[in-house]
Amino acid sequence: MEKKCIGIDVGGTTVKIGIFETDGTLVYKWEVPSRKEENGAYILPDVAASIRKKLNERGIPMDAVIGAGMGFPGPVQPDGYVEVCVNLGWRDLNPQKILSELLDGMPVRSGNDANVAALGEMWQGGGKGYKNLVMVTLGTGVGGGIILNEKIWTGEQGVGGEIGHIHVMEGEKEACNCGGHGCLEQVASATGIARTARRMLAADNRPSTLRSLKNISAKNVLDAAKAGDALALESLNKSCYYLGWALATISMVLDPQAFLIGGGVSKAGTFLTDIIKRYHDELSPMATKKADIVLAKLGNDAGIYGAAKLIIG
Amino acid sequence: MEKKCIGIDVGGTTVKIGIFETDGTLVYKWEVPSRKEENGAYILPDVAASIRKKLNERGIPMDAVIGAGMGFPGPVQPDGYVEVCVNLGWRDLNPQKILSELLDGMPVRSGNDANVAALGEMWQGGGKGYKNLVMVTLGTGVGGGIILNEKIWTGEQGVGGEIGHIHVMEGEKEACNCGGHGCLEQVASATGIARTARRMLAADNRPSTLRSLKNISAKNVLDAAKAGDALALESLNKSCYYLGWALATISMVLDPQAFLIGGGVSKAGTFLTDIIKRYHDELSPMATKKADIVLAKLGNDAGIYGAAKLIIG
Repeated sequence: MEKKCIGIDVGGTTVKIGIFETDGTLVYKWEVPSRKEENGAYILPDVAASIRKKLNERGIPMDAVIGAGMGFPGPVQPDGYVEVCVNLGWRDLNPQKILSELLDGMPVRSGNDANVAALGEMWQGGGKGYKNLVMVTLGTGVGGGIILNEKIWTGEQGVGGEIGHIHVMEGEKEACNCGGHGCLEQVASATGIARTARRMLAADNRPSTLRSLKNISAKNVLDAAKAGDALALESLNKSCYYLGWALATISMVLDPQAFLIGGGVSKAGTFLTDIIKRYHDELSPMATKKADIVLAKLGNDAGIYGAAKLIIG
Repeated sequence: MEKKCIGIDVGGTTVKIGIFETDGTLVYKWEVPSRKEENGAYILPDVAASIRKKLNERGIPMDAVIGAGMGFPGPVQPDGYVEVCVNLGWRDLNPQKILSELLDGMPVRSGNDANVAALGEMWQGGGKGYKNLVMVTLGTGVGGGIILNEKIWTGEQGVGGEIGHIHVMEGEKEACNCGGHGCLEQVASATGIARTARRMLAADNRPSTLRSLKNISAKNVLDAAKAGDALALESLNKSCYYLGWALATISMVLDPQAFLIGGGVSKAGTFLTDIIKRYHDELSPMATKKADIVLAKLGNDAGIYGAAKLIIG
């Protein structure tokens, strides 16, 4: 039997699991709920039991599996140690060691979920063919994952790739979740795009289709901008200007081949990436060949792909 | 005989050359002029002849030398190819291949001089003990060199580490050498520090000891700020704010252990690095453990040290 590997993406609500061929083909995927009772003590035993069951159902012997990779929402030390993972209730444990023991010593590797998703996109998604890339996830926050020479780069203390907390706005009074003021996340996340539009509407008397909406979402702003609403477009340009600026800075530092844009906001497609690219290119004058700015492709599956790649190496 | 290696730093005026023990001890160093006639065609033959002579004088046989590393002022492809090196007159050649042939096939490696200097500082200078660091050279311009896992990181097209061209100032009207507007180099290089002070003096009526000077240099600004001149300090703070901000961004992206500050401006010592650190720390809220900001130590010898390290690997 062809060797298999397993990718696990542990989230706050569900754990996504996939069985892969080592060439990157997804054989089968499923989900189990993340039971967070008792500080998440059931999560890994549930995952292990579910993996055993599915392998058994599909006639895959344990020794045909080369190992499992796992991503979770928090900082992970190089040896897999997790000091604290707020979303799962974990504290002071080594999940990869625990899971390995629960699976008869199967090799298990782990990493932060944003980084692991970036690895997945590089392997089988929008980043296929690139070796050096930076993934930017535009969701409730702005997440980042850096891949250098096909490997995750986390930096000295795992802060590497925290591009949502790049300072971009001078004079911002409102505080970011991180305690800073003027972080990229405050203007370019889904929340940030909506807030930027609300502020612009409040500071301006121009007509806008957004004025008729009770709660403005990032999608409303993107849709209105696409439909030609001048104020919505101006607001979106502002959000994309700060994002493009941050990416231009990264180009001057790391000179990656590409930026991958993912997350809910990226559903706006090339309409969005074209605006980001305009600002990125304008603000990275030293780069003769500009980095590509492309859309992520794997959506919610990026995590299981990247986790599988983590164990393949 | 203990194995030796050679470090070569090719500059626009002189070539610095050093013979090293493989443990990093500098055995002997000297210089030869950079003859730039005929598109720099004499530079490498001069270097080779001089190396042969010095090895001979010191009784070191060629086969005791494991190889030579070389840095030069321009972008270098991974295989050593140089498309153009303006300062030396070189165009379309592979200097490491040429030098190797001139030295009976001795292994030769090469890199951009700013990157090579960063490697030297990591190996035997202010960055000793760090594996991941970013060197910032504050001279006429702002140069950068990135070391990740003890290796130079150049990025996709060699733009990696061009931190002088990180965009930091919105609304700057004057153009940078690179064609951009508002680059870090325009405010934080020696030239930039002086210009920022001149602008502040012109926009302000406050007294300042700088007003009595005809041509204000970065050294004048630093000296006056150290001596308590309020306007000079305010101006220096402004330059350091933008530098600290750029480094804070790098901390969010790469999370290095340390930033090394070198170049002529760094002679101001910890007075300067303390100010930079204040802004860096303030603008990198996500980093629990802040990157160290330390002074480079090797001065003009950083290049030969780094070049030697390049061949040791």
